[in-house]
Amino acid sequence: MKDNDKYIELGFAKLDLERSQRRGYPEAIFCECKTNEQLVEIFSAFKEKNTNVIGTRANLEQYKYLKQKLPDVNYNEKGRILTLVSEEIQKVGEVAVCTGGTGDIPVAEEAALTAEFFGSKVKRYYDVGISGIHRLFDKIDEIKKANVIIAVAGMEGALGSIIAGMADCHVIAVPTSIGYGASFKGVSALLTMLNSCAEGMSVVNIDNGFNAGYSANQINRQIAGVK
Amino acid sequence: MKDNDKYIELGFAKLDLERSQRRGYPEAIFCECKTNEQLVEIFSAFKEKNTNVIGTRANLEQYKYLKQKLPDVNYNEKGRILTLVSEEIQKVGEVAVCTGGTGDIPVAEEAALTAEFFGSKVKRYYDVGISGIHRLFDKIDEIKKANVIIAVAGMEGALGSIIAGMADCHVIAVPTSIGYGASFKGVSALLTMLNSCAEGMSVVNIDNGFNAGYSANQINRQIAGVK
Amino acid sequence: MKDNDKYIELGFAKLDLERSQRRGYPEAIFCECKTNEQLVEIFSAFKEKNTNVIGTRANLEQYKYLKQKLPDVNYNEKGRILTLVSEEIQKVGEVAVCTGGTGDIPVAEEAALTAEFFGSKVKRYYDVGISGIHRLFDKIDEIKKANVIIAVAGMEGALGSIIAGMADCHVIAVPTSIGYGASFKGVSALLTMLNSCAEGMSVVNIDNGFNAGYSANQINRQIAGVK
Amino acid sequence: MKDNDKYIELGFAKLDLERSQRRGYPEAIFCECKTNEQLVEIFSAFKEKNTNVIGTRANLEQYKYLKQKLPDVNYNEKGRILTLVSEEIQKVGEVAVCTGGTGDIPVAEEAALTAEFFGSKVKRYYDVGISGIHRLFDKIDEIKKANVIIAVAGMEGALGSIIAGMADCHVIAVPTSIGYGASFKGVSALLTMLNSCAEGMSVVNIDNGFNAGYSANQINRQIAGVK
Amino acid sequence: MKDNDKYIELGFAKLDLERSQRRGYPEAIFCECKTNEQLVEIFSAFKEKNTNVIGTRANLEQYKYLKQKLPDVNYNEKGRILTLVSEEIQKVGEVAVCTGGTGDIPVAEEAALTAEFFGSKVKRYYDVGISGIHRLFDKIDEIKKANVIIAVAGMEGALGSIIAGMADCHVIAVPTSIGYGASFKGVSALLTMLNSCAEGMSVVNIDNGFNAGYSANQINRQIAGVK
Amino acid sequence: MKDNDKYIELGFAKLDLERSQRRGYPEAIFCECKTNEQLVEIFSAFKEKNTNVIGTRANLEQYKYLKQKLPDVNYNEKGRILTLVSEEIQKVGEVAVCTGGTGDIPVAEEAALTAEFFGSKVKRYYDVGISGIHRLFDKIDEIKKANVIIAVAGMEGALGSIIAGMADCHVIAVPTSIGYGASFKGVSALLTMLNSCAEGMSVVNIDNGFNAGYSANQINRQIAGVK
Amino acid sequence: MKDNDKYIELGFAKLDLERSQRRGYPEAIFCECKTNEQLVEIFSAFKEKNTNVIGTRANLEQYKYLKQKLPDVNYNEKGRILTLVSEEIQKVGEVAVCTGGTGDIPVAEEAALTAEFFGSKVKRYYDVGISGIHRLFDKIDEIKKANVIIAVAGMEGALGSIIAGMADCHVIAVPTSIGYGASFKGVSALLTMLNSCAEGMSVVNIDNGFNAGYSANQINRQIAGVK
Amino acid sequence: MKDNDKYIELGFAKLDLERSQRRGYPEAIFCECKTNEQLVEIFSAFKEKNTNVIGTRANLEQYKYLKQKLPDVNYNEKGRILTLVSEEIQKVGEVAVCTGGTGDIPVAEEAALTAEFFGSKVKRYYDVGISGIHRLFDKIDEIKKANVIIAVAGMEGALGSIIAGMADCHVIAVPTSIGYGASFKGVSALLTMLNSCAEGMSVVNIDNGFNAGYSANQINRQIAGVK
Repeated sequence: MKDNDKYIELGFAKLDLERSQRRGYPEAIFCECKTNEQLVEIFSAFKEKNTNVIGTRANLEQYKYLKQKLPDVNYNEKGRILTLVSEEIQKVGEVAVCTGGTGDIPVAEEAALTAEFFGSKVKRYYDVGISGIHRLFDKIDEIKKANVIIAVAGMEGALGSIIAGMADCHVIAVPTSIGYGASFKGVSALLTMLNSCAEGMSVVNIDNGFNAGYSANQINRQIAGVK
Repeated sequence: MKDNDKYIELGFAKLDLERSQRRGYPEAIFCECKTNEQLVEIFSAFKEKNTNVIGTRANLEQYKYLKQKLPDVNYNEKGRILTLVSEEIQKVGEVAVCTGGTGDIPVAEEAALTAEFFGSKVKRYYDVGISGIHRLFDKIDEIKKANVIIAVAGMEGALGSIIAGMADCHVIAVPTSIGYGASFKGVSALLTMLNSCAEGMSVVNIDNGFNAGYSANQINRQIAGVK
Repeated sequence: MKDNDKYIELGFAKLDLERSQRRGYPEAIFCECKTNEQLVEIFSAFKEKNTNVIGTRANLEQYKYLKQKLPDVNYNEKGRILTLVSEEIQKVGEVAVCTGGTGDIPVAEEAALTAEFFGSKVKRYYDVGISGIHRLFDKIDEIKKANVIIAVAGMEGALGSIIAGMADCHVIAVPTSIGYGASFKGVSALLTMLNSCAEGMSVVNIDNGFNAGYSANQINRQIAGVK
Repeated sequence: MKDNDKYIELGFAKLDLERSQRRGYPEAIFCECKTNEQLVEIFSAFKEKNTNVIGTRANLEQYKYLKQKLPDVNYNEKGRILTLVSEEIQKVGEVAVCTGGTGDIPVAEEAALTAEFFGSKVKRYYDVGISGIHRLFDKIDEIKKANVIIAVAGMEGALGSIIAGMADCHVIAVPTSIGYGASFKGVSALLTMLNSCAEGMSVVNIDNGFNAGYSANQINRQIAGVK
Repeated sequence: MKDNDKYIELGFAKLDLERSQRRGYPEAIFCECKTNEQLVEIFSAFKEKNTNVIGTRANLEQYKYLKQKLPDVNYNEKGRILTLVSEEIQKVGEVAVCTGGTGDIPVAEEAALTAEFFGSKVKRYYDVGISGIHRLFDKIDEIKKANVIIAVAGMEGALGSIIAGMADCHVIAVPTSIGYGASFKGVSALLTMLNSCAEGMSVVNIDNGFNAGYSANQINRQIAGVK
Repeated sequence: MKDNDKYIELGFAKLDLERSQRRGYPEAIFCECKTNEQLVEIFSAFKEKNTNVIGTRANLEQYKYLKQKLPDVNYNEKGRILTLVSEEIQKVGEVAVCTGGTGDIPVAEEAALTAEFFGSKVKRYYDVGISGIHRLFDKIDEIKKANVIIAVAGMEGALGSIIAGMADCHVIAVPTSIGYGASFKGVSALLTMLNSCAEGMSVVNIDNGFNAGYSANQINRQIAGVK
Repeated sequence: MKDNDKYIELGFAKLDLERSQRRGYPEAIFCECKTNEQLVEIFSAFKEKNTNVIGTRANLEQYKYLKQKLPDVNYNEKGRILTLVSEEIQKVGEVAVCTGGTGDIPVAEEAALTAEFFGSKVKRYYDVGISGIHRLFDKIDEIKKANVIIAVAGMEGALGSIIAGMADCHVIAVPTSIGYGASFKGVSALLTMLNSCAEGMSVVNIDNGFNAGYSANQINRQIAGVK
Repeated sequence: MKDNDKYIELGFAKLDLERSQRRGYPEAIFCECKTNEQLVEIFSAFKEKNTNVIGTRANLEQYKYLKQKLPDVNYNEKGRILTLVSEEIQKVGEVAVCTGGTGDIPVAEEAALTAEFFGSKVKRYYDVGISGIHRLFDKIDEIKKANVIIAVAGMEGALGSIIAGMADCHVIAVPTSIGYGASFKGVSALLTMLNSCAEGMSVVNIDNGFNAGYSANQINRQIAGVK
């Protein structure tokens, strides 16, 4: 294991050490294509440097393996998030996370947990989709109080547009792969969001709760004055 | 010009005479790929049989040519509809035609004029899209009184879902090619409509106001008891 | 479990109570992304309110779990439909459900069972596809007697066009994912149906028998005068 | 202009001389991307060798230029076909060319003229599409007498399937770019034809009347025993 | 089981009895979406009528079940073809079946077995793809002697074009789903074949060896004079 | 012209008056599908209410017509932006607008002018794309000082990822339709941006400089504390 | 006009000066989205630095404007290439440029002229496509003598595979947008080339003759030992 | 087993023997669609001829079967490469293989092992993607010393562009299917690479490490003067 002040060289990976300094936040680990052994090496290396670390798209089996070697690791199964926190971050401001339906909750949890890990207070509003729009209207005044809103929706994905048409803060829309037939695993929701006639909304990749949470936190903390 | 009781043989076309009897309504003429001469032949043939005829996607130049030969022909430029009415149809019931924006009006007019030609009363509600949703809510109680609702929208195309989530009659959604970039000439709106989580809505081809108007009329007249 | 007169708050879901009043029919539950526990909570909550409930895309294992807790639940495996009926609806009018082939029957059953649940009489005409068109012609006079026709077809999906060209009531076409190669899991059939040159037909999402059945019932009941 | 017994070298093109011997028929010229000067060179070179030549997708302006230099050249504007015939071919057998609508006629004419140029008798059946299917049934017994049938259709493109389901000879289906919205310039018709559940039909490229005519002639002449 | 002279009514299927008379060949059964019980009913019904029957895309497990009930059934595992022959057909003429690679053989076998079942002599030429084109050239003179050639290829799918450029009979091209990445499960090969600059070739659906074999047999028998 | 406190009813349009109050900013007008007369009506109506108004995707001819009727209207041809300012907004904070190439400048100008109209200070960094990455590195320290960064790029669209990998504030990426071949009018750049492995970046529709500018301004002003 | 040793700052563009040193070759200018004035500024700036410059996708009108201001500029209309050469480069090695048809020549010329500009000897082999494959075989021994081969083809785009299967040097394949229907403006040819079963071939963007010529020259010069 | 000097006839395959002579390198075997028995036949046949052989996309189970019959066979599980080396090749020159992330390593290994098998020295640079671009910059001077660079990347796939913008040798870019959502199994990365504004880079099929390694070796050996 070679090592310099900028990154840790593991051969199969080069862990970014100066990211906290350069970008304000530590590196996140995409667990989907990594072996158990690789994850242990990565989490151990960060731990040694006393750096907080978050792993996304981790499965239960990866967690169990890791837990044996690193008992401090935590796991949220719904959001598939691994965390190892050496230094607690102060949560500030407010991010609202909304979903169109029940099936969108895992992606929403990935977003919410990420925003919390990086230092935001989060409020959740689930199953407020447009087929029964009074459910959304009941909550909209509360939702609008956030600094940033995350709108998570599959199928036709219109939730974000409705919220953006009523809110005065930025909305980050996350299409999900929930649906069937011509939903094309989230493409329909993605296109809906990109073509929204309600301005003040931007979009991330299908099912990418992590980037939504990261971005919302980034904006929320700047607004809260603690970048 | 050969001729039998079922259709008129023009060589380049075979005009369906028994359609009124078989389907309840006369044949419509798709003008886009036809020459001026062909249109004159077709409209004259129907006129001779005393059959009402409607032409869709007709341009102004086609109308002017036709008007010289057949002074009874009428034209609506916005909806690009030609009509030649020998026998007036009684308009019954009510069809509501709504658009998301101003750019969707030509397709909406095609739908509205078609429904009127075949025998429906029509009410128009334009620019009630979701970016300023209070405009729609102001009108929704009135819209819901119709027997069938046509929702015409481009861009993200969410109008139909919102209306279907509030109405108790069937909604026919028409995606339009209005938009740019990832709207892909109406594909985004089409997918939104097909994936709607609000049941009670069906969809027609992009920009196909004619079929929406035809179908809405068909349903409306059955409800009104005058199929 | 918070509760108000408009919906039941379950945290992961908000059950629409005023839908019957607003839209004429109770809410349906999309079971595919729900856990067994969530389904029990949802069905129990509706039962307590004495509201009929229908669940779509339910698998056998979900049914077995639910049946233990709620013995009144019924299941149709072919159509993957769960129902819990507290108050019987009177079936009226007539909806015809046709399929192109044998493989389309599950989607057709979803449509037929849905229409029956919400209050329509249904007649089934299976395997009347166009490769042996005399099979369809044998039945067409009977099919045409319905108030609404549902045409379910995969592969090239031309069934709906043929029927719409001969019937005088509205046709709702359902593309199915039956086929291979360039059928692209139903996209080919979907495009055929959207581009039909036979007017008087509208389309729902690939494999969406539920929406077809819901919509057909909605129209059928209006025609029968019992909306 | 270099020259050998296998091809004529024009620098920008190498004209295939041994094709008649190798494949039974002379080379055809795709005119769309060629300049007037190039066409003159090509047609003159073939003429000098006393070889019949056919040019496809030629526009009127190309014809007029060519006619000045080579007065024997003939042009069919609808089918956009140029021919220069030095040695008349005997027409044999029978090819039937059918279209769904009036807008498909140019592609059908390209097919018919090609088949005639290479040596087939051709019968034309235009506007026999499925929205008024009795028009097709009136003609089907006559159509079935051909050795090969060409079915040309845009929009949903179901014509070929219907015919193939009733005929006992091979059907070559040609999708056309006629249509709008989700017809995607012929893709919808192409997919319909590829996914046909009626066997005994094969497909050529969108708007490729030439290949359909060439192939039908090839098969027809083999059946007639004069390959 | 209702029954008339045109088809056998099984409820879930309507077996086409007059097809032999109408189209010259008996109906084929697409086994992929059928249950074991349905296949037994179908094969038994045809057997009772003394009609030959072929089943495509059948798996080994379907065969084993069927074999117990109908011991006369035969199965070819590579081509996934079930046959039950009551009356032997005389094989005539010649169809050549070629593949680009080894992976294309199952589709080629489906084509070859189908052509043989319906009455053609077949010769097989496997692994003659274009990456080592001398292997094709070694065989081309022999291949060209057939009445029809079937070219089966995945990946880039250029085999058909090369053969069509050298042969004087019709080529039916079958794209296969062999390949990866941008082959998009056969779409790349399909597009190659549709866009071939070598005329005299038509295309069937991806992996549709059955239709290729059926069509080739149809043409071959007409050429042999025994339609 | 009907009128209420929430919107102005023009028949073809319903102008949103309460948007400033509801969302913090006045409505913007999408000029592309509007006639000259409609634009005059709309701009006059807003002017009467003393509300600032911005029109996007306006062409020169529309501007000239409008200028005659409303001499206070301003136009930026590169960004295709019309403005009519009744009440000057104080510009605050800082938004950085970067482009990959020279061809991306019109979209970047749309973004920059929009952000300025709604109240942000803007700095422009043009032609800092990745093929000569030292040009970007020269400017990156200055760019990073902004509260929000807009990255505008066509072709492969990698600019946003590079910047997001180095900056600690949010990046809004705008794909442009600049490019050819497999750029598919901006789809390639759009996909690149959606799939970025650099978190902290969100995406808007192809060529949608307006939404990028609007969103950046929204975030920038919140950070500056003057929402 | 600001200026440093690494690039020239023109505001709308930053001209890369150190590219020759960094990459071995001067920057190329993509003319399609640039105004006449911008091109004059750019070419003048390079000329002042005595740096050779090449402009791609330039139209005749741009050339004429430029020629007035900078009489040393040269233009090749077929390849749409502008050059201004201050210091002649020695041409070395050999690059072979082949086309499938006559319509592919403009892209081939773009490739050939680019390779020559940057320092390669080029031989051209046009119209050697696979529909008359003996034309290619006549030339293949000569073609194989090159250090790199560029294969330019539209429609089905199989030329590159055939050549790569016979040559022992690298082949760079360029799909062109020549074709119609399902060629999808070059996508069919692109997919063919990407899926080639003949290894030793790589692909560039549709119609991107420039990159093919640049890359071939780069490899050719390295082989010739004069990088 | 028939046999001639050009290829070995195995019935299901024709093994190319003259490839070494014709193309400079022996044939490679695509193992994915082959049975264990076929692989044994193929490897044995080559071994008998004393020809080196490489198998790609082989799974562990295929290796284990083969190893029993042919103990000299070697296997690399990560790269899924089987080799049987009868005559060692001298490794020359230098090829650099880089990856964007850890998930891209299997494809990179396929490339590296292929290049080594055919005779190149290879250096590996893994996890140097653009989200932490200083990791790449640390290595770039070393990377640039190679004769050819292979850039392997999934997700947005921008790695190749960045390297090509800094290197003076040719870059072969390999998109991988790593990613999710709108990465469309590698399509996003493929498009990024095709549209790169950095010239001097060409692209191979998604996940096609083999062709990248083969092509890089071909070029590298020519540069090293040992083709």
